[in-house]
Amino acid sequence: MTARLAAVGLGRWARVLARAYSGSAVAELRACFSRDNERTAAFAADFGCEPAPSLAELLGRDDIDGIIITAPNDQHAPLIEAAAAAGKHVYTEKPIAVEIADLKQIQQAVRRNGIVFSCGHSARRLAGMREMKRALEAGETGTVSMVEAVFGNERGLEIKPGDWRADPAEAPGGPLTQLGIHQIDNLQYLLGQVVRVTAVGRAPRPDIANHLVAGVLLEFTDALGYLGCNWLSPGSFTVDVYGTAARLRYELDFSWWSKSSQTDAHTRLTRTFIAADSADPDARTLRTDTVELSARDHLREEIEEFALALQGSARVEVGLAEATANVAVLRAATRSMAENRPVEVAEIYDEING
Amino acid sequence: MTARLAAVGLGRWARVLARAYSGSAVAELRACFSRDNERTAAFAADFGCEPAPSLAELLGRDDIDGIIITAPNDQHAPLIEAAAAAGKHVYTEKPIAVEIADLKQIQQAVRRNGIVFSCGHSARRLAGMREMKRALEAGETGTVSMVEAVFGNERGLEIKPGDWRADPAEAPGGPLTQLGIHQIDNLQYLLGQVVRVTAVGRAPRPDIANHLVAGVLLEFTDALGYLGCNWLSPGSFTVDVYGTAARLRYELDFSWWSKSSQTDAHTRLTRTFIAADSADPDARTLRTDTVELSARDHLREEIEEFALALQGSARVEVGLAEATANVAVLRAATRSMAENRPVEVAEIYDEING
Repeated sequence: MTARLAAVGLGRWARVLARAYSGSAVAELRACFSRDNERTAAFAADFGCEPAPSLAELLGRDDIDGIIITAPNDQHAPLIEAAAAAGKHVYTEKPIAVEIADLKQIQQAVRRNGIVFSCGHSARRLAGMREMKRALEAGETGTVSMVEAVFGNERGLEIKPGDWRADPAEAPGGPLTQLGIHQIDNLQYLLGQVVRVTAVGRAPRPDIANHLVAGVLLEFTDALGYLGCNWLSPGSFTVDVYGTAARLRYELDFSWWSKSSQTDAHTRLTRTFIAADSADPDARTLRTDTVELSARDHLREEIEEFALALQGSARVEVGLAEATANVAVLRAATRSMAENRPVEVAEIYDEING
Repeated sequence: MTARLAAVGLGRWARVLARAYSGSAVAELRACFSRDNERTAAFAADFGCEPAPSLAELLGRDDIDGIIITAPNDQHAPLIEAAAAAGKHVYTEKPIAVEIADLKQIQQAVRRNGIVFSCGHSARRLAGMREMKRALEAGETGTVSMVEAVFGNERGLEIKPGDWRADPAEAPGGPLTQLGIHQIDNLQYLLGQVVRVTAVGRAPRPDIANHLVAGVLLEFTDALGYLGCNWLSPGSFTVDVYGTAARLRYELDFSWWSKSSQTDAHTRLTRTFIAADSADPDARTLRTDTVELSARDHLREEIEEFALALQGSARVEVGLAEATANVAVLRAATRSMAENRPVEVAEIYDEING
């Protein structure tokens, strides 16, 4: 059976996602809605789906099983509440929410209505991330002591005052919320829950209140991590893992980020290790091998998983718990930036659960 | 004329340096000294120089112009004081000192006796670092907002309790003092003085009190930086610079670190930029070019510069001021680790100058 989906919030990313699962045997884009009627009509025409005149009409339809939310962060909670109340399953873009109150509202709506919920932390589905996870679990890198992740692009050079991304309340930490959240998910996927966070941000554009650069130190139980994010330089996406037996480096050509069927073909994972050991440190020789990766499709895969899950034939990998854990780290980082102190992630969880 | 030099402190690095300038037309290794007579004799035999029976004898000789110190960090100050009092010029390995009191003693000795002083922050002399500096000054990378440097190796896996490197007083922050100090110099060379430092360390070996992993956030006037150091993973040495026009990445194969005439041949500098721009962010294409580097010899060059400087025919690039600026950042980092708070570098300078 095919899950019948509707797109809600029709900006650039709605189109990227719709393209990613077009032609899928398990997920069909049947309808769409945005508050802008013209935009809704254009999207419907481009993707061959039905424009919904209102959210209420869309959620009242019997032929829609789930909605795909690609609206700004602060609209996630009310949209999810409305969808859940109507018995619709929900996929939403990351971050699940930025405000603790929104997060609580979403958790309650999802649990009360028993809907399937999936959050778009797609990056862990990249072939290189899967391979890193496999290598770590197989013990091939030894004990990991240090990890670094970077995600940046040039968006801050063209962002305009008034854009929701320019608003610290909407996208706290700027690229940290919009890009870094992917790496927070990746790092917690690889190394488990972050315990403590120390962060510094920069807001160099006088006309934009939001941070455009962020540096974050992440303390895991067994390793020390760094996350660097910026909106002021050509696209970058890297993960470095330092283990006793080897270090791994993953690089993704950001040009291909949104063309998900081709992303993996434009990534590179290397493994560096001591190929010739010696008691004399100056006689040791390092070798770097490229690790072969089998291409996947990170965006199509997450939508198809959601589509199968709402029919009971798959399990959602990144659901409420994982999405919440990522926001907890994000909030700890933005609090650390604001208060100039290390912040325990447990402090944020106390508020989420309080 | 050839400067007549003596090596003091004859561990592994003394040999690396001696090899680096052997055959030099401007620097000659004429004598050597360590507190271990056997070691002194072996070094003298291997490098064709004279073993000195005592430091006093060595410093009393008329045919020695300068000394090359490769002794542990806490011996730098007394050695430099003795050498300066004897009118000998001094090159010392990095860090110049780790204790503020030692630093003050060195500053006083150097200034009072008017000797030439050089500190071994050789890494800025790597061809790739020189090229990055040129590109930044020429404006080719645009405005830099973020920078990252990593330096690590596997020494912490074999370090033994009792080794001075295992002692937090001797090498505070472990790899941060011994390796990271090179990157602190590189980053300040590229971007100017660090203003504020926030750091986190890890000491995962129960038998070693010292940190074996350190993560540091560095706030420059205009950019945000990260420095990652570890002693628990195969050698790594990288610098990433994120500018509005391009990002630069420098990688060095640590196998070649101490073979300074060949180091540059085993490095790689790349420049990534938007090769095809578009109003649509999904249509932009990145390109990464490898930047050609002309090989230099970072260790030979710094010793030859010192040899020429003590004859008045060169200027020392990394002297008291630069070496002090690096230690100020190092101390700010170790204080931040100990006190869990951001530390202004000015706070350290107040103590140095107080």
